[in-house]
Amino acid sequence: MNLESALRFSHTLLDQVVQQGDTVIDATVGNGNDTIYLASAVGKTGRVYGFDVQQAALDTTKTQLVLTGLLPQTTLIHDGHENLSVHLPSETTLAAAIFNLGYLPGSDKQTITHGKTTISAVQQCLTYLQRGGLVVIVSYYGHPGGKEELSELKTFLQALPQKQFQVLNYQFINQQNEPPILFAIQKR
Amino acid sequence: MNLESALRFSHTLLDQVVQQGDTVIDATVGNGNDTIYLASAVGKTGRVYGFDVQQAALDTTKTQLVLTGLLPQTTLIHDGHENLSVHLPSETTLAAAIFNLGYLPGSDKQTITHGKTTISAVQQCLTYLQRGGLVVIVSYYGHPGGKEELSELKTFLQALPQKQFQVLNYQFINQQNEPPILFAIQKR
Repeated sequence: MNLESALRFSHTLLDQVVQQGDTVIDATVGNGNDTIYLASAVGKTGRVYGFDVQQAALDTTKTQLVLTGLLPQTTLIHDGHENLSVHLPSETTLAAAIFNLGYLPGSDKQTITHGKTTISAVQQCLTYLQRGGLVVIVSYYGHPGGKEELSELKTFLQALPQKQFQVLNYQFINQQNEPPILFAIQKR
Repeated sequence: MNLESALRFSHTLLDQVVQQGDTVIDATVGNGNDTIYLASAVGKTGRVYGFDVQQAALDTTKTQLVLTGLLPQTTLIHDGHENLSVHLPSETTLAAAIFNLGYLPGSDKQTITHGKTTISAVQQCLTYLQRGGLVVIVSYYGHPGGKEELSELKTFLQALPQKQFQVLNYQFINQQNEPPILFAIQKR
């Protein structure tokens, strides 16, 4: 075996929590990989809410969801994840949410996630989270603005009350190319 | 599922690497839990070298090994792990090594591991490590001297050449009681 990358480990963690019938969030649809992964994991009786500010990303993802037969259990929302409470039914109970922070791969790198809106979205997810539920964040931070977002996010996460949440940090520390860092928040 | 503690995750990683017949090291025998775990994992055709500077720890562990029938594949060595090369056959190929840094649980907390000798021992383990092999370090650092050791160790690990090794850091970041931190070094 090889030590799992942050991206791979994000799925290892979600695999242990997300079940058929669950409601989950992909807070950063991007290339749609996680949306498809989650839609498959929750099945036809579950629900995935996917957010992105880039219409093109949602269009591409929708095509993939149609092709894989996973569109029925997926709701794609063209809005920033900081507005997720506006779109979620108030009685929603979340099993999991995933964030991929950075810019859309293959894009012009102009559209990036930001600390303030990321933190707001994470906070909103936590209010809907069920006991044992997970919010997983994979942070790419090598681009301009990335380190600021990472720093703000880490400060926020370190201050989460330990009686309510466990916050795990998983990262490779001897690599020069700034591989992504994973954070996982579990509700006790 | 719950996010695994550093101690539990150390076994999750070792479970994926250590096989029957392997040679492994418990660099800090202490209460003997990891020695017994490793002796069971490598089986009768394998070999565990266990080091401790505390004769009492080795005596207790030996009793447990006899009771569990695991003594034949175990060599207990009353010496500091910084001298491990003295005791290992030069042709040794290691699948794994584990370090539990801190003081012996239940002891007087006077006998602790130290950065300089820990780093020397880790370096020696790396020279014997096979491709894909793992050195796992669980660092308890809440005691006097613990933060210094952790700091020195982390500086050393961050500088390990990335073409030869991957270094993973796994830790909980929102807890006040200084839970242990895990590092895992895998040889590429």
